[in-house]
Amino acid sequence: MIDQKFPPPPEFQLGAIPDTNPVLEGVRWKMWHKAIGGPLASVPDESWSCVLEEKHPEMLHLLQFPYNGEPPKRLVTAETITPNNLHFIRNHGGIPNIKADKWELKIGGLVRHPRSFTLSDLQNKDLFPRFTKTCTIQCSGTRRVEQIALYAGEGDEMINAPWAEGAIGTAVYTGISLKHVIKHCGGLVDDGKHLELFGADTYFKQNEVMNYSVSVPWSKVKANEVLLCWEMNGEPLPKIHGFPIRALVMGYIGARSVKWLYRVTALDRPTHAPVQSKEYLYFNQQFGKHNQRPIDGIQIQEMPVSSAIMMPLNKQVVIHTGSINCKGWAYSGGGRWPERVELSADGGFSWYAVPVENISEKHRFSWRTWHFALPCEVEGWIEIVVRCWDNSLNTQPLEVRSAWNWGLHVTSSCHRIKIYSVNKKRELTQQRLSEFQRRKEGFIPITRPTDFPQMTWEDYDEFWKKTQPRDVQSDNGGSDSE
Amino acid sequence: MIDQKFPPPPEFQLGAIPDTNPVLEGVRWKMWHKAIGGPLASVPDESWSCVLEEKHPEMLHLLQFPYNGEPPKRLVTAETITPNNLHFIRNHGGIPNIKADKWELKIGGLVRHPRSFTLSDLQNKDLFPRFTKTCTIQCSGTRRVEQIALYAGEGDEMINAPWAEGAIGTAVYTGISLKHVIKHCGGLVDDGKHLELFGADTYFKQNEVMNYSVSVPWSKVKANEVLLCWEMNGEPLPKIHGFPIRALVMGYIGARSVKWLYRVTALDRPTHAPVQSKEYLYFNQQFGKHNQRPIDGIQIQEMPVSSAIMMPLNKQVVIHTGSINCKGWAYSGGGRWPERVELSADGGFSWYAVPVENISEKHRFSWRTWHFALPCEVEGWIEIVVRCWDNSLNTQPLEVRSAWNWGLHVTSSCHRIKIYSVNKKRELTQQRLSEFQRRKEGFIPITRPTDFPQMTWEDYDEFWKKTQPRDVQSDNGGSDSE
Repeated sequence: MIDQKFPPPPEFQLGAIPDTNPVLEGVRWKMWHKAIGGPLASVPDESWSCVLEEKHPEMLHLLQFPYNGEPPKRLVTAETITPNNLHFIRNHGGIPNIKADKWELKIGGLVRHPRSFTLSDLQNKDLFPRFTKTCTIQCSGTRRVEQIALYAGEGDEMINAPWAEGAIGTAVYTGISLKHVIKHCGGLVDDGKHLELFGADTYFKQNEVMNYSVSVPWSKVKANEVLLCWEMNGEPLPKIHGFPIRALVMGYIGARSVKWLYRVTALDRPTHAPVQSKEYLYFNQQFGKHNQRPIDGIQIQEMPVSSAIMMPLNKQVVIHTGSINCKGWAYSGGGRWPERVELSADGGFSWYAVPVENISEKHRFSWRTWHFALPCEVEGWIEIVVRCWDNSLNTQPLEVRSAWNWGLHVTSSCHRIKIYSVNKKRELTQQRLSEFQRRKEGFIPITRPTDFPQMTWEDYDEFWKKTQPRDVQSDNGGSDSE
Repeated sequence: MIDQKFPPPPEFQLGAIPDTNPVLEGVRWKMWHKAIGGPLASVPDESWSCVLEEKHPEMLHLLQFPYNGEPPKRLVTAETITPNNLHFIRNHGGIPNIKADKWELKIGGLVRHPRSFTLSDLQNKDLFPRFTKTCTIQCSGTRRVEQIALYAGEGDEMINAPWAEGAIGTAVYTGISLKHVIKHCGGLVDDGKHLELFGADTYFKQNEVMNYSVSVPWSKVKANEVLLCWEMNGEPLPKIHGFPIRALVMGYIGARSVKWLYRVTALDRPTHAPVQSKEYLYFNQQFGKHNQRPIDGIQIQEMPVSSAIMMPLNKQVVIHTGSINCKGWAYSGGGRWPERVELSADGGFSWYAVPVENISEKHRFSWRTWHFALPCEVEGWIEIVVRCWDNSLNTQPLEVRSAWNWGLHVTSSCHRIKIYSVNKKRELTQQRLSEFQRRKEGFIPITRPTDFPQMTWEDYDEFWKKTQPRDVQSDNGGSDSE
């Protein structure tokens, strides 16, 4: 790998994000796979076929390979449980081709009795009790576009996919607890405190090839919050979601929920794997290219409280009669849940609480979807803002800058959209819209001028006769024109 | 004109501004001139030749025809008096070809003795005393890019050129007072209160062709603040700046300083000409396409206090030792002048006053240029903000939204630029920059990852041995791994 030349990563973070689908192709990753050759050479093509087969045709493909994609806004919260084919995907490498009957899970490291389990072993109800959990998985890059738009950053060597609000999804997973599997190996020994999870997907970092891996602390496993799952929304786990077995680390960022899991190793410290030690770090805003030592970043585990508006769309022209229909999601990591959702139509000055009956039901580890008719009298450009208070009363910073960081992770600030408000309850507005209709002239785009006048010269002159002139007159009795 | 089809205006205000020079061609205006034919057909080509001949090769051409252009940031405040070839141009039509010896100025309307003057008449020192004035002309579209970037608007039928901070310039003009010319015609009669100024340039509005015209109140003329000029910075007025005679309405927006002046008509009310009555109006932010009657906008005359940063550039990476060199301009309309300039390196929280010795000299009707080494300790993305207090203690709103309006005019909010600060006074920063140099690796672009590590694994492990682990340990004495 070191002998070969690969192109530098694209610098799209400083410019406009291309309006293409996929947004980026992933040329370097494809070249890396070809450079290694053998069965890896065809992985990019096979992965893309898998995307086309398993995912919804309307997915937004941020990166073709490794595949990164999210559903379009219209579909993100169309259902409270995300259909499998619409659930976002954040891959770091190719999608492995695993035969379930040849698959084994190796448990090793600081466990009393290292051993392997077949899929049948794990699915043996007599050995392991089953868990079915409604769980939200969120990528720490969700809403990264907002950080990119404010200031450029770099993050890690992996391209920072320009995620919008769809890098989050909720599904019902079925599987077993990793705790019980470890117990089945006699538990941890010595200083065993962390479990390293290995996925079968390829992972490239600084000219090295490895498998994807991260670790989770034993405390998390012990709480039965790390599952090994083979079912997603009542269906076998799709290939693109980690078939045959994926980890589900509930309440942590998606990066910990390793797909195509094939090995678990108990360690006395968190893994040195780059995803854990060098990426997904949350830096203070003063750290950048020259000073971002990995120890200066907080390893991202639980996501903070956040929320997003899925309707209306940013820059949409909304013609309404005094209230604007909004919908979206709210979520808090670490097992906390949204307790209140609030919306503002004035950029974050006045807040309306979404009535509880308009918010979907509570679960630990799951988002809540909501809808609300937001009162709005004013016309013109307004900013709709959403914020959430979770059950611990955590809430979100108001501005993107408050949460901006070099890795462009964890956009926890309030989601803001600009909409152009046209209030038909206003009489003059209603009249003018009728005039547009009568003339069969489009009101949209709002930036295209109209040829028909806003008023007659007679009315214009009449106004100025009744009104003080634009320039103040002198008050004395004498002629102003002497 | 009505029988012919012309393409709709381009909608660039909603998208990214193209990175071309010229930014826009002006297809519709070229077609209009061709449609009328005769000598007008060749005006677009002649105008462009004039631009190439008279203007600096580095001008940013916002619109090729009618020509709109401004100097690049580097040159805007390079000199306190703007060289003629760098002064911004905001034309509404073609550049007329006027022979000085055939030119006449017609004075008519509500004056006692309507008559015409040749150029020699006006330049006759026995008839008219001469004035030489240092005067800033500012387009009300200056810094429009900031309003466009925030929200789209439409303005008038004329394309809203995406002006940056260079649509302002300062020159020394020589000419005579319009007041004396009017007096020479016996003064105003009846209700004469406004003087309509006509330029020889073409002007198109809603399928009508006319000459450019506006009006100014007699009170302004009476104060000797409306000059008829033939000299700019000691040279004959360049053709593109209104040869042989232009009006100079001191302290008003550039739109009132009619170029290629050939007629002045005294009226009892402001002109109905579209530039005055339908364009250059300042609307409340709730007025847009459907409700912007001309009477709802304030006719823009005097520009409010404003300022801009010309150095450093937006998004620039600035490596410094604790202070950042900045320079720019400050201006206030209506004969007010900048009394204090203040800079902030923290987005508008703390303000430093620019020492008076770093600000160019005061004139009524003129900007002041300034420079300052702005203290800055922090690293990463910062926002430098400038604001001005004029001699009446007017100052600027902090945010673009405060001044946003449908016509995208008068961007009077504080100018903000983002820069990436790297402070070499910090020891670790200095070390790391040396490392970049030693490896002959570019520090820029900051978004491109580096291959060399920020620290060794030994240092990494050492840190975590001395430090509390990422995940909190249980406090009890028992084993955490039971």
